[in-house]
Amino acid sequence: MQITSRKQFLKGAGGAALGLLAGAEALTLTSCAPAQAVANQATAAATATPVPPTATPQPTQAVAKPVQVATLPWPYQKLDPVAAAERAYKAYYDGGCMFGAFEGVLGELRDKIGAPYDSFPVAMTKYGSAGVSGWGTLCGTLNGIAAVIYLLYDAKVANPIINEIFAWYGTEALPNYKPKAPKIAEIPTSVANSQLCHQSVAIWATKSGFKIDSPERADRCAWLTASVVQYGVQLLNDQAAGSFQATHAIPDEVKTCLSCHGKGGMVGNVHTSNMTSCTTCHTDLGPQHPATK
Amino acid sequence: MQITSRKQFLKGAGGAALGLLAGAEALTLTSCAPAQAVANQATAAATATPVPPTATPQPTQAVAKPVQVATLPWPYQKLDPVAAAERAYKAYYDGGCMFGAFEGVLGELRDKIGAPYDSFPVAMTKYGSAGVSGWGTLCGTLNGIAAVIYLLYDAKVANPIINEIFAWYGTEALPNYKPKAPKIAEIPTSVANSQLCHQSVAIWATKSGFKIDSPERADRCAWLTASVVQYGVQLLNDQAAGSFQATHAIPDEVKTCLSCHGKGGMVGNVHTSNMTSCTTCHTDLGPQHPATK
Repeated sequence: MQITSRKQFLKGAGGAALGLLAGAEALTLTSCAPAQAVANQATAAATATPVPPTATPQPTQAVAKPVQVATLPWPYQKLDPVAAAERAYKAYYDGGCMFGAFEGVLGELRDKIGAPYDSFPVAMTKYGSAGVSGWGTLCGTLNGIAAVIYLLYDAKVANPIINEIFAWYGTEALPNYKPKAPKIAEIPTSVANSQLCHQSVAIWATKSGFKIDSPERADRCAWLTASVVQYGVQLLNDQAAGSFQATHAIPDEVKTCLSCHGKGGMVGNVHTSNMTSCTTCHTDLGPQHPATK
Repeated sequence: MQITSRKQFLKGAGGAALGLLAGAEALTLTSCAPAQAVANQATAAATATPVPPTATPQPTQAVAKPVQVATLPWPYQKLDPVAAAERAYKAYYDGGCMFGAFEGVLGELRDKIGAPYDSFPVAMTKYGSAGVSGWGTLCGTLNGIAAVIYLLYDAKVANPIINEIFAWYGTEALPNYKPKAPKIAEIPTSVANSQLCHQSVAIWATKSGFKIDSPERADRCAWLTASVVQYGVQLLNDQAAGSFQATHAIPDEVKTCLSCHGKGGMVGNVHTSNMTSCTTCHTDLGPQHPATK
C-alpha cells in the first residue's frame, strides 16, 4: 500500500497529457446539479421559499397553508479566530470532529448575536464523526466548516472560501493550531494529501507511529478541528472585511487528469472540479498512461 | 485505471490474513471522538446544553446570560416513501444532491408537523453538492440523509440506520427509484462500491457511456437522490414502528484488512469501522500482501 502522493508519476507521463490541456474547456464543474440549479443556488438561499401543498385538498380536509421555510443568509460578525479554535477543541470532545468545527464557529456567533443562531440544533452535526458514523469518508472538520459557511453566504461567495479551506487542508502540515491547554503536549504534523478522514488519519498514524485508538490520535483530531476553525474564521473575517482573495489553483497534476476525465474531456467520467491529487488513490497507473491503460 | 472492485484479490491472499481474525478484537470504531464522547453523543442530543459565558464578566459589563441551544431530537411521523422520493427528485434540481435528500425528508416533516421543522434553514445543505462544492468526496445524497436522521435520533439509534443506508448504497444497483415524471425516460444502473461521489459517478459514467456533463448524468443523480430518500424513509418508518432491524455486516474483505489496520490491529492505522471495499482504491496491493508490502 502506498499512502503518500506519487507526484513523480506525472513527470514521466504527464508531458504528453499536459499538452491536451491546450484548448481544453475550462474546468468549471461546481455542482452535482445542472447549471441552472447552480445559478439558483446563488440566490435561492437568500429568499423565502414557500412550499406548496403536496396534494390537492380533499373536500373533507382543511385547505393546506403553504409552510414557510427559514431563510438565509444569517448575519456574520467578525470573530476571534483563537477563541473559535479553543471552542472547537473543547467541542470535539463533546461530539466529534464535525460538531467541533461547526460549533466552533456557530457557538461564537450564537454568543455574539443570539437569534437566529440559538434556533440551530447543533447536535445534529455529530453525524459527521470519523467521516460520517465511522465510515471514513469526508473529514468531519471539513464537513462542519463547509456547512456553517453555507449559513452565512450563498454558493457564489461560499464556494471560493470552501475551496481555499479544502485545498489548504490537503497540502498543509496539520494540525497547526496548538490549544492553550491540550490533553497531549505535542502532536506531530502530517500532510493529508486528501480531504478524506481515512486517508488523513492513516497518513498521520503512519508518520507519527501512533495507532488510531491512541489518545494521541484523538487529540490530533481535536487539534485539527481547532486548526480548521482558526483558518476558516480568518477567511470569514477577510470576507466580512472585503479583503478575501481566492488563491487556490487546481494542481497541474489534477488539471492533466481532468483534461481527459473531467468536463469536456474525451473520457469525461470524473465528476470532480477540485482535488489535491488523483494519484493518492490511483496508485496503479503505469508510466505510459494514458497510452497503455 | 481499474475502477471496479477487485474482490478476487483476497481469494489469493486472504486465507492467511483471514486467519488473523481469530481472536482479533471486535471492530467497534464508531467515532472520531474518544469513547466517552461517543457515549455523550448518545444522550447529549436529547438534552438542553446551556452554553456558559465565555469570559468572566468585567465590572463595567453586564453579566452574560447563558445562551440556550436548540435541543434534539425532533419528532418523527411516518412518511410516504414515494412522496418523499418525489420531493427529493424535484429538490435535486433546486439545490443539488445533498439538498435534495435532506429536503426530501425534512420537507415532508415540515408539511406534516410544522415547528420546529420550519425553523431549519434547509438551503444550508446545498453545500454538499458533488461531494461538497464539487470536491467529489462524500456523495451528497448520503450526507443529506445522515444529517436529517441525526435530527430525529441520537447516535445509538441513528448510526445503525445510517450504516444500513451506506452499505446498501455501496452494493445495490442504483438508482432503483424511477420518478413519476422523469426528465430522462430510462437511466442505467450501476453499483458504486463506495460512498464517494467521484467513485459513484465514475463507475456509472463508465458503465453507461454517458459523460458527466450530460443531462443523463444529472438525471441519474436526481433519480439516485430519490432512491436514497425512498430507502431512508422506509427504514425510518420501520424504526418508528419498532420493526427496524440492522442487517448490515462488515464485508469479509474489509474485516480482513481491518484485522491488521483497524482498531487493535498490529498496524492500527485505519480509522474506519465500516467500508464497502478496501480494494476499490487500494488497487496496487500484490497477491502476497501483507507478506511483501
